[in-house]
Amino acid sequence: MAAAKTISEYLLQKLFTHGVRHMFGVPGDYVLSFFHQVESSSIKVINTCDEQGAGFAADAYARVKGLGVVCVTYCVGGLKVTNTTAQAFAEKSPVVVISGAPGTNERIKSPLLHHKVREFDTQLKVFEQITVASTVIDNPQTACREIDRVIDAALQHKRPVYIELPRNMVSVTALPYYLPQDIPLPRDDNALKEALLEARDIINTSRKPVIVSGIELHRYGLQDEFLQFIDKTNIPVVSTPLSKSVISEHHPQYMGIYEGAIGRSDIREYVESSDCLVLLGAFMTDINLGLFTACLDQGRSIYATSEKVYIHYHAYENVSLGDFLKGLLQTDIDKRETGAIPHPKPLQPLQPVTGKKITINYLFRSLNAFLDKNTVVIADTGDAMFGAMDITIHKETKFLAPAYYASMGFAVPGSLGVQLADPNLRPLVLVGDGAFQMTGMELSTSARYQLSPIIIVLNNSGYGTERPMLDGSFNDLTTWAYSSIPDILKSGRGFSIKTEDQLEEALTLSRQYAEDICILDVQIDADDKSLALESIAKAFASRV
Amino acid sequence: MAAAKTISEYLLQKLFTHGVRHMFGVPGDYVLSFFHQVESSSIKVINTCDEQGAGFAADAYARVKGLGVVCVTYCVGGLKVTNTTAQAFAEKSPVVVISGAPGTNERIKSPLLHHKVREFDTQLKVFEQITVASTVIDNPQTACREIDRVIDAALQHKRPVYIELPRNMVSVTALPYYLPQDIPLPRDDNALKEALLEARDIINTSRKPVIVSGIELHRYGLQDEFLQFIDKTNIPVVSTPLSKSVISEHHPQYMGIYEGAIGRSDIREYVESSDCLVLLGAFMTDINLGLFTACLDQGRSIYATSEKVYIHYHAYENVSLGDFLKGLLQTDIDKRETGAIPHPKPLQPLQPVTGKKITINYLFRSLNAFLDKNTVVIADTGDAMFGAMDITIHKETKFLAPAYYASMGFAVPGSLGVQLADPNLRPLVLVGDGAFQMTGMELSTSARYQLSPIIIVLNNSGYGTERPMLDGSFNDLTTWAYSSIPDILKSGRGFSIKTEDQLEEALTLSRQYAEDICILDVQIDADDKSLALESIAKAFASRV
Repeated sequence: MAAAKTISEYLLQKLFTHGVRHMFGVPGDYVLSFFHQVESSSIKVINTCDEQGAGFAADAYARVKGLGVVCVTYCVGGLKVTNTTAQAFAEKSPVVVISGAPGTNERIKSPLLHHKVREFDTQLKVFEQITVASTVIDNPQTACREIDRVIDAALQHKRPVYIELPRNMVSVTALPYYLPQDIPLPRDDNALKEALLEARDIINTSRKPVIVSGIELHRYGLQDEFLQFIDKTNIPVVSTPLSKSVISEHHPQYMGIYEGAIGRSDIREYVESSDCLVLLGAFMTDINLGLFTACLDQGRSIYATSEKVYIHYHAYENVSLGDFLKGLLQTDIDKRETGAIPHPKPLQPLQPVTGKKITINYLFRSLNAFLDKNTVVIADTGDAMFGAMDITIHKETKFLAPAYYASMGFAVPGSLGVQLADPNLRPLVLVGDGAFQMTGMELSTSARYQLSPIIIVLNNSGYGTERPMLDGSFNDLTTWAYSSIPDILKSGRGFSIKTEDQLEEALTLSRQYAEDICILDVQIDADDKSLALESIAKAFASRV
Repeated sequence: MAAAKTISEYLLQKLFTHGVRHMFGVPGDYVLSFFHQVESSSIKVINTCDEQGAGFAADAYARVKGLGVVCVTYCVGGLKVTNTTAQAFAEKSPVVVISGAPGTNERIKSPLLHHKVREFDTQLKVFEQITVASTVIDNPQTACREIDRVIDAALQHKRPVYIELPRNMVSVTALPYYLPQDIPLPRDDNALKEALLEARDIINTSRKPVIVSGIELHRYGLQDEFLQFIDKTNIPVVSTPLSKSVISEHHPQYMGIYEGAIGRSDIREYVESSDCLVLLGAFMTDINLGLFTACLDQGRSIYATSEKVYIHYHAYENVSLGDFLKGLLQTDIDKRETGAIPHPKPLQPLQPVTGKKITINYLFRSLNAFLDKNTVVIADTGDAMFGAMDITIHKETKFLAPAYYASMGFAVPGSLGVQLADPNLRPLVLVGDGAFQMTGMELSTSARYQLSPIIIVLNNSGYGTERPMLDGSFNDLTTWAYSSIPDILKSGRGFSIKTEDQLEEALTLSRQYAEDICILDVQIDADDKSLALESIAKAFASRV
C-alpha cells in the first residue's frame, strides 16, 4: 500500500484505482470539505439537481464502469438516496455511498445538530439494511482498513456499500496498515471438479440444450468467457429482461428474450422443451420469469450463480459462476452442429405516412432502425422498458433498465452516468411521462456537462402501465410541454411529435445535433401500448 | 368503535375522524387497489410528480391540520420518502406513511418479486429507524387495533408512523375489537403539583422573566392556553427560528426571534440578562441556539417539554408541557407591569428605483410590506429561511420552515399541503434556486389542483449558503429560465426580475392573479446575502 497523506486522499486514491473518474452528488455543510478535496483530485465532481438524480447516475455509471460513487451530506442528502441504493442492491450494481456527517468531536454531548433525525447512527442503521458493508470512519488507525474492507465488498458482491465520513476526519492523516487483509472467498475445489464433470455429462448427452444468460455475466466481467463458451459448444442462447444485451443481439446463436408467456411463443416453446437448461447468472425474479408464467424445470437445469451451482435438485456450495464458467471452458464439452433455432425478429420500420397519428408500434419500429453501434438504450420503468424488449441491440451491454427493481425515474439521470462513463456512447433514453416528471429536471445536469442524450418521452398523459390493471384519476398526469424544456435550460432542442413524419424528421435532426440534448415529446393515445405491456398488464391485473 | 367493513375502510375512517381530507402520493401496482378505495372515500387523492413531493406535502399538511398522510407503493415509492419522513420525525410533524406491499400470500415462497430489495421486511426496518410506531397489517384479527395503535402514536408523539398494507388485505373484512386499548400516558400528579409550586415561586420572585416559546406549543395545540398565560402574567415573549409565528408577531408582549449572536442584539441582551427563563416546548437545536452562540443559563431556567419539566438542574418526570401550562393558568402567578421591552422592528419597504438592481435587502423589505393576514410564508432551507426571520408574520402559525432538519426542497411541495389544508391561505414560497431545482416540478401538482402559490425564486446561481463557508464549482448551478416554467405547465404566470421596479410590478400583478401560480425569478448577485446569513455562514464556516 502506498502511503497516502489524509483519509480523504486515501479514499479517493482507492476509488481512482478501481476506475472511478466521476463522483455524483450535491454538497452540504457536513460534506463541504470533502467536496473541496475531490475538486483538487483526479476525480471530477458532477453536481446533480437533486440527490436522487446523483444516486441513479452513480448506479448507471457503476453498471458501465464497474464502480460508481454518490456523495451526499448527512441525512438530508443521504436519506434521499435510499431508494437508488436499494435499486443498486436489488440489481447488483456496485455503488459506493459516501456521506458527510457531524465531526466525531461534535457528537460528544449529543446535541441536536441540524440534519440529525433521532440518533447519530440513524442513517447508518438505515443503510445497513440496503448495503453489503458499511462503516463510519471515526478512527485514523483503522480508516484505511475500513475503506478497503468496504469498497472491496462492493467489488466482490457487486452491491452498494456505505461510508460515513465525519467532517473532522477528512484531512486527518491516515495510518497505513500492514496486516494481511485479504480474506479469501470460500471456495471448494472438490465441489467445483465434481460439478464440472456432472455438467459435462449432462450437456454432452442432452438432445437440445439452451443457455439462459443472466446479468451476473456482465456484473462479474465474464462476457468474454461466455462468448468463448458459446463458440466452443454452439449451444443456443436466450437472455432475460434484466440481462438484455449481455450478448450482442446479432450473435448467430442468440435467439431472443425468454420471458414465459409474455414473450415470443417460438422462444418459449424452444426453451421449455429443452432437456438441458444452462442458467448462467440469471436472477429468478418475477418480471424475469414472465410474472411466473415461465416454466423452467429444475430437474433439467444447471444453474450457476455468483455463490453456488445447482444441478437438478442438488447444490455445489462455494462454487462461483466465474470458476464454473472458466472450468467449463477447460472441460470436454462437445461442439454441436448449428441446428434450426429461433432468431431475433428485428422490428421492421414502417413507411411514415404524413399526418398519420403516431403509435407505440410505429415508434419502436422506427427507433429500432435508428440505433447504431454507439447508441446505448436506457429504458425507464413501464412501457418504455417492456416495449423496448423487442428492440435489437447491436453490441453487448448497450441496454440498461431497472428490469427487476423497477423504480421509476432512473433513465434520465442514468444517462448522465452512462455518457460520462463512456463518452463514445450516445444515450437514447426511453421514458414515460410519469417517470420524466420525477427526475427529468436532471437534463439540467446534462446541459451543464455538455452531454447529449436523446430523450424519447412516451407521453400518454398518465401511468400507462397501471391503466390496464386498475384505472382511476390517480393514473392521470398533468401534461407538460416537454418540447419547451430547452427554453428553461437555455440548451438543447425540443420536438413536439404527433405524427409519423414528425417523428422521422425529429430523429434525423437528433442525429445531426450530435452534441445537443434532444427531447422528443411523442404524444400517443392514453390507451396505446406495446404488445408486451398488454400481456404484462393482464398478468399483473390478476394480482392487484 | 363503529364496525367498519374492510381494513381499508377502517383505516380511512380513522384518518377522516382525525381531520384528514387529502392523501398525497403516487400509485404503483402494490398499492393500486388501495388508491381505488380512497377514490371512493371522503378523502381526496392528491397525485404528486414524485414521492418526495408527496412526503413534503403531507408534512406541511400535518403542520397545519394536525395529521397528514402520504401513500406510496412498496420500496420504489416508500424508500423515496425516507428523507421527508425523517424531517417529520426531527421536527415533530405527525405524518402517516401508508405503503402498499406484496400480498401475504405472495410472500410465502419468498420469490424475487419486483420492487423487493433484500428481505420482505427491509422497508419496515428502514422505517423503524425514523418513525415512532410501525406495523404490517397482515392479520384481519389485529388490523383495527394495529391501525389505532399506530395512528394514536402519531397523534400523541406528533411524529411520523408507518403502516404497511399488503395488497391482499385491502378489501378483507376487519374484525372489530373490544379490548380496552387506551393505555394512559405516564403522568405523575404529585410531580406536577410540586413543579407548579416551585415554578410559581421562581417566577413571582424574579425580576425580569422571559418566555421562550417553542414549536411544541403549536404541535400540541396549546396556543390558546399560551396566549392566556401571557395575558395573565404580562411576561414578555421571544420565539426561536423553528417556532417563528407560534405567536402573532404583532402581539404587544412579543419581542422577536432569539437566536444567540446571530440575531438582534437588543433581544439577545434582554434574554441573556433575564433571571428567569421560561422555555415552553422549545427545541434546543443548533440552529435554534444561534449555532451555539446562545447563552441560556440552565440555573435560571424553567424548561417544559412534551415529556418532562426541568427546573434549574432537576427534572420532574412524566409532567407534560400541556399539563404544566394548564396548571400554570390555575396557579397564583402575579400580573406584572408592562415594562420597556424590545419590539419587532418591521422591515420598512424602500422606495423602488426604476432600473436599480434588485438585492436581498430590498426583496425582504418589499415582501414584508406585501404580506397580509391570509398569506402563509413557506421558506426553504438557506437564505430563503434565514432572511425570512426578519419578516413580520401577521397571525400565528403563518410561517413554515424546516428550521431544524434543514432539508432542501420542502417549500414548493409544502405549499400544496398548506393550501389544501386551508384554502383560505395563499402560500408565499421563498425558495433558493438550488432547492427549486430539486422539487420545483411539483408546481405541476399545484396547477393540476388549481392552487395559487406565489413562488419567489432567490436566484443567485448556486448554493448561496455554502459559498461563504467554502466555495468551489460544486456550489454553482445551471441557471434556468424560471419565469418560463408556466409555458411548460401551460398554467401560471412568470416574471423575470432584475430590478426593484420589476419586483414591485410583479408583486402587484401576483396579487391580482389571485387564482394563479405566480413565479418570480428574482435575480440577485451570487454573493448577495441577508445579514442573518452573513453571521450564520461565519459561524458555520469555522466548523466545515
